[in-house]
Amino acid sequence: MSKMIKPDLSAPVDGRQSERALEIQRGTGRLLRRHGFVSLPEVTLKSGRRADLLAINTKGEIWIVEIKSSLADFRADKKWPDYWDFCDRLFFATNQETPEEIFPEEAGLIIADAHGAEIIRDVEQRKLAAARRKALTLRFAQIAASRLHAIHDPGVPTHIEPAKL
Amino acid sequence: MSKMIKPDLSAPVDGRQSERALEIQRGTGRLLRRHGFVSLPEVTLKSGRRADLLAINTKGEIWIVEIKSSLADFRADKKWPDYWDFCDRLFFATNQETPEEIFPEEAGLIIADAHGAEIIRDVEQRKLAAARRKALTLRFAQIAASRLHAIHDPGVPTHIEPAKL
Repeated sequence: MSKMIKPDLSAPVDGRQSERALEIQRGTGRLLRRHGFVSLPEVTLKSGRRADLLAINTKGEIWIVEIKSSLADFRADKKWPDYWDFCDRLFFATNQETPEEIFPEEAGLIIADAHGAEIIRDVEQRKLAAARRKALTLRFAQIAASRLHAIHDPGVPTHIEPAKL
Repeated sequence: MSKMIKPDLSAPVDGRQSERALEIQRGTGRLLRRHGFVSLPEVTLKSGRRADLLAINTKGEIWIVEIKSSLADFRADKKWPDYWDFCDRLFFATNQETPEEIFPEEAGLIIADAHGAEIIRDVEQRKLAAARRKALTLRFAQIAASRLHAIHDPGVPTHIEPAKL
């Protein structure tokens, strides 16, 4: 009867993230909220890749924000267009120290610091297929609630991970 | 719809009631997890009523668990059948001190303590309409993520509440 779910407890801080990336994550999370989106950091997708921020609004629209805290960070990622398979809009988020012109126009651009952020270039929406949107929404719900549960009840079984999409 | 039960005015209502309810909530949350469900406490529904626990599994099945920590607590709620509009299965959860026989068979029954719980009576599934399920899933995602966000970033704007279903 039961399907085991293992919570993704990596959020929001893990050893791989630099301090700067965390600042961008925080500022961008606030920006998303202003735009009516709740967001979850570090969500592993069906492709195996991890979205830095997966965000969803009350209409069910889904955005992904990839955080790039330096030029090297951006250059290390050749496969970023793959995120388009999992969102309606894709953005990069960076800081003021990283040159804007390195970021391709096929994604939107957000400039953030630890306190807030701005969308400095929007990007046209590409509409997710209904089945993918449904699966992503369900996975978002599972991960958010399992992380919250682990905070409120550290005794909760932690071997459960929602199925990948 | 439910069998009438004569009130027993001697039923104790004391200051520990909410503490007992929290114990039931915790034990039930663990039970739900074992059954593959993530859960969120205290979710306000479109009807204006608040579900004590709204739970969802990886298939998108939705359960509601109403916590009744005493006979008086159960008797104070005449409108519990309304929760059926928002779930595939409805359960009461109580503790060992509360007599099982007060709970109507139109809902399942869970006996819990602070450490765990068991489903002692299951209930047949009634299938939610697709649009309602979709809206509930989205709302679940919104609420879970916004609560998690508020924990990780107390500076996040808190004036945004997901629309009611």
